[in-house]
Order: sequence, then C-alpha cells, then structure tokens
Amino acid sequence: MPIYNFSAGPAVLPKEVLQQAAAEMLDWQGSGMSVMEMSHRGKEFMSILAAAQHDFRELLAVPDNYKLLFMQGGAIAENAIVPLNLLGRDGRAQPATSDYINTGSWSTKSLKEARRYGNVNVAASSEDSHFAQIPERDSWRLSKDPAYVHICTNETIDGVEYQFTPDIAAETNNAPLVADMSSHILSRVVDVSKYGVIYGGAQKNIGPAGLTLVVVREDLLGHALPACPSAFNWKIVADNDSMYNTPPTYAIYIAGLVFQWLKKQGGVAAMEQRNIAKAALLYDYLDSTGFYRTKIASNCRSRMNVPFFLADETLNDAFLAGAKEIGLLQLKGHKSVGGMRASIYNAMPLAGVQALVAYMKEFEKQHG
Amino acid sequence: MPIYNFSAGPAVLPKEVLQQAAAEMLDWQGSGMSVMEMSHRGKEFMSILAAAQHDFRELLAVPDNYKLLFMQGGAIAENAIVPLNLLGRDGRAQPATSDYINTGSWSTKSLKEARRYGNVNVAASSEDSHFAQIPERDSWRLSKDPAYVHICTNETIDGVEYQFTPDIAAETNNAPLVADMSSHILSRVVDVSKYGVIYGGAQKNIGPAGLTLVVVREDLLGHALPACPSAFNWKIVADNDSMYNTPPTYAIYIAGLVFQWLKKQGGVAAMEQRNIAKAALLYDYLDSTGFYRTKIASNCRSRMNVPFFLADETLNDAFLAGAKEIGLLQLKGHKSVGGMRASIYNAMPLAGVQALVAYMKEFEKQHG
Repeated sequence: MPIYNFSAGPAVLPKEVLQQAAAEMLDWQGSGMSVMEMSHRGKEFMSILAAAQHDFRELLAVPDNYKLLFMQGGAIAENAIVPLNLLGRDGRAQPATSDYINTGSWSTKSLKEARRYGNVNVAASSEDSHFAQIPERDSWRLSKDPAYVHICTNETIDGVEYQFTPDIAAETNNAPLVADMSSHILSRVVDVSKYGVIYGGAQKNIGPAGLTLVVVREDLLGHALPACPSAFNWKIVADNDSMYNTPPTYAIYIAGLVFQWLKKQGGVAAMEQRNIAKAALLYDYLDSTGFYRTKIASNCRSRMNVPFFLADETLNDAFLAGAKEIGLLQLKGHKSVGGMRASIYNAMPLAGVQALVAYMKEFEKQHG
Repeated sequence: MPIYNFSAGPAVLPKEVLQQAAAEMLDWQGSGMSVMEMSHRGKEFMSILAAAQHDFRELLAVPDNYKLLFMQGGAIAENAIVPLNLLGRDGRAQPATSDYINTGSWSTKSLKEARRYGNVNVAASSEDSHFAQIPERDSWRLSKDPAYVHICTNETIDGVEYQFTPDIAAETNNAPLVADMSSHILSRVVDVSKYGVIYGGAQKNIGPAGLTLVVVREDLLGHALPACPSAFNWKIVADNDSMYNTPPTYAIYIAGLVFQWLKKQGGVAAMEQRNIAKAALLYDYLDSTGFYRTKIASNCRSRMNVPFFLADETLNDAFLAGAKEIGLLQLKGHKSVGGMRASIYNAMPLAGVQALVAYMKEFEKQHG
C-alpha cells in the first residue's frame, strides 16, 4: 500500500532523496565518512554546500545582487531576526516603524515579535473575516517611509496564498518588501527582484527542520541593531558564506538533494504546473459537493495547504481513521482552525491527491 | 581498511547509530514515514523527543530542578543567548556585569559576544601563556555580584580542559556558574548541581550540527531582556517543551540514538574511563619523544582534543598525507594554532587512537 503523508511540516520528502540519503549514510561518495561526520570546513562538505547554493539560486533565479544565507531557528526565529537586521536601515532613529499585512496565524506571530523591537503598523488585516481572504492591495494603509513591509505569502495554517506580487515601492519611499515564504518556496515561479528579503524554514517544501533559508538584497546588509546576536546578523553570515557558526550540515545536504531532484523534475516552472493541477483536483471536488467545504476565497486559495471541513463534524474521527487505514496520513487540521488540512507540497505526487479525492468521494458516498 | 576520523566537529558518530539511521531512513518503525517527514507534534516524533530527553537526563544525572532545552544555533548563538537570558537576573539594572574566564579561542568568542549586552569582567585569562593552561582558581578576580560567571570547560581549539569544578558561590553572592561544554559533554561525569547553566553544540560529542543542548536551573528562567527573541528565550522554550519553534527533528533523533548507544556502553562513567585510557595513550607517547610535542600543561590537558606539533614542521604535509593513506582522517590542526589535532570523542574507539600512535611511531622512525 502506498503511503501519502499530508503533514503540514515537517513534511513529505521525495522518495528518491531518502533512498540516496540512506545509501550514502555511512560513506558519502567514497569519503569514508557520513555527511554528518564531516568537518564543515573540509573540501567534501564545502562541495556539498556550494552545489546546494548554486542549485537553489538557479531554481529560484536569484539575481546576482542577492545573498543566499543558510541559517537556523526557522521562521519563528527569523521573525525577530528581520527587525533586528532591518529596523536600523539608513541609520534611522529607534524605535523605527515597520508595516505588516496580517493574513493569518503566521503573519500574526511575525508582527507580534516585531513589536519587541519597534513600532508596527498593521497596514491591512483579514482577521475580521477569519483570514479567509488576502486584503486587496488598494485597501492597504502603508506608512510613508517604513523600514520594511512584511507579508507572509502562504499561510500554512489558514490556507491563503498571494496570487499576486504587491507593488509597494511608490507609497513607501522604496521600502523593501520582506516575505515569509516558508510553506511555498520553490513551489512556484517568483520574481525575486520584487523583494528585499525572502525567508523560510526548510521543513515544509525543502528539507528537514532546523534549516532556514534567507535571500537578501545586498544593500540591506550591514544595518543590524546592536542587540542582534552575531550569529543572526545577516552581514556577518553573508561575509562568512553561512559558516560563521557551524551550519546544520546534514540538513543542507538533504536540501541539496531536494534541489537536484527539483531540477530533474524540470525546475520550479514545471513544479508550478503540477502544483496547479494537484490543487485544482482537490478544490474542484470541494466546490462540487456540500458534504465538504472550504472557507477560503477562490482568488487566494493556497496550492500548498488546503484546509477543509466536513459539513457534519461528528464524522471527523471516522474520516481520519478511514484515511489512515488506507495510508493517507496526517490529515487532521491545525488545532486553531479545526477540521482537516491536506498539505500537498512539491514532494506530494499527483497520485497522492488522486488517492485523497477518491477516498473523500467514497467517504461521502458511505456517509452522505 | 578501517577509517578513523579525528575531525574536531562535526565529528565521528558511532557506526551502529549510522547503520540504524540508514535502515530506518524511509520507514521509521513501521510508521511509513522517515523521521524527517514527521510532524513534530505527532505521536511518533513526540515519542522520539521524550526518549531523547529521558536518556540525556539519565546519562548526565540532571537533577529535577533543571530544564533540558533543545535549541538551535550552536554555542556561537548561545554566546548571545546566555547574556540575553541572564543579565536581567533579579531585575538588576542594565547594563549588568558578567564574569568570564578566558582560556582559549572559544572563551574569547563568548566574552566578546557578551560585551554586546553588558559589562564583561575578564576575571582571569591565560592568554599571556598562549592558552597552554587554565588559570588557577585562586588567581581569579571575580566580581562581588555578577549576573553569572562563564567558563568554557573544554577548549576544542586550544586543547585545555578543566579537571576541577570551580566553586564560585561565596565570592559572587551565589552567581550561577555557566559552562560551555560543547566539546566534552557526556565524555565525563559532571555534578550538574554545581552549575546554573550548561550548554553545548551537539556536533562534537553528541550528534549532527544544528542542535544545541541547554541545561538550565529553573530559578534562572524568566529573566530575559526585552531584546531576546522569543525563540531564544529559555523560559518560552522550556514552557513549550522545546517546541515553541519547530525543533531540528532529525538531529534530535540522531542524538537520541547516540544516547541509547552511550547507555549500552555503560553510561558516562564507563565512557570516562575509556576516554582517560585513550588520552593517556596519546599523551604518554607525546611525552616520551622529542619528535612530537604538546604545549599544554599536564594538569589541564584535554581528553577530547589533543593538539600536537612535529618538531620539524616542514614534515607536516608528509605526516598528513601518510595518515590519510592509511585511513587516519582530518588530523590537521586548527588554522589559529597550526600543527596537528586529534579529536578523540566518545565515538572514537581505542583502536583508532592505537592506530594513530602506531602511525606516529612509524613516521618518527622513518623521519626521526
């Protein structure tokens, strides 16, 4: 029986990647060492790091004037690291102001953490609609000169995703746009040049937990507040090629294997087409029945995280138990939202979504 | 040919651990998932986490009034996280003062980072002797009421190790003793109750890079400065059982396997006896010849990291090349010290040290 793991993160990884990792566990390419045992400054690991950096930059088409940093602590740590690195931009007086768009649980966490370091202007929020939509761009009340504007481009818990790239330059005196892309990075083509900073925890669409990716435009380096720990100062990390502290070497190795796998799949544009098809299969079915429902506005439904509900929630346990029995795992919704959630990241094959929809139809037939 | 990897970290892991990790890579104990793919809040990973916590506490005999935290960023991040969490102890006015004992490269890094957050009193230093010894306890000029006193109990780069536990309570108004034990934690019996905080990066004596272990006495929680990121606030991490942000799940799994392996070896007391024997074998030989030398005072030689030098340094490259040829890897000394360094952590078997000494003797015979 094939197993399909719909966990929101840490999440499913390509089987080929896990097979290669298992085969190389005791001896990486004749080195006599596991990747876990290598000095991070030795030539073996340096080659793994360089390949991972090169492949990620190629996959996301990162322009030359952006640095790619491998850090630790996930998006939750980065929620503090962003203001610590950007509030001092242009030597502005502290506490400086940053703008946040609140579109769900992750945005809320980000802006609460930012309040620790400066003034936060919530320029728009969909909290009143229980985060079922993204506030329309022309409703945003941006500051005239914020240190930066923060968005979360895919809300893992609430299931909304930006289907547009907001243009904020003119209203904000060219403030950098900062995006938490943790749960959809590399799932769709992105014009990196529209952003000042892109960051994400790896454990959803890239690799193992414990690795954070940060893509930062070079002019945004060097403005850290004095309270910023050296290990989290983007300039120090960039100047040391992500080796100021010992990087999470094994997680970088696995991420690198995922990047190689993505290239074999045809790259991000090809993955995006598959992700569109996978999401359409599930949403089309949800829209066709009253037995299940989704609450998310159709113009901002996440292709990665699909929360849905049974109209009769007394059937929830039966739904989950039946799913598990046939190998459809981790479908329970986040506790703050309830219901179900199917996370269908890059590594989830179309066959997994087909199996889920088939099960949902069968369950509807039995209980509808 | 057996391979022996003397890397200072990331470093050698027990072969049995790597074999089990390889075997379980695609399917952990019938779950249908790799450990990397598990939700950190699912029952499978929660059981892995609980076992790792339990085994570490048992191995180090951690008293009940101490919390064990699994964090990220290694010792270099923790160098900032320590002052961020402790300088506000007892509500003292900022900037507060902390005391540091400077015994090598790692102590120096720690105290430099602490200066970012408060006043640092270097209570003793062996810098003048090029860190070849630990300053004697009665030479320390401690503050009367520091927020804490920081030591690095094993200097990975310089090769000195505390062979005593400093008593500082009476002179410092019961300030907590904080120890960076990164490179010898679990290699010897420690009386945890003598310390306020023990921390260490996992990548030397425990497991993969990207995991930090922190053992903190409960009364030291809850004093974080306002600038401390939530993800690095020990109280928040403790209250959330190391799950405030997604923990480095796979690194915790490997560390847990290492803990199980250590228990099978007889625990920390048994490992300590083996480590004493391994270190004696190498130091005794170094003391017996003029061909090699060590600079470290005999009462503070590290059992884990043994820097040594060839009297004729023009032979360095030949020594390293010959060693590599017979499977003795990563013996080159740290660039700041030069010469050679053999790191002989828990996972290095006695046979590895025997092979090294045999090679050294043979090399001396050929070139002496």
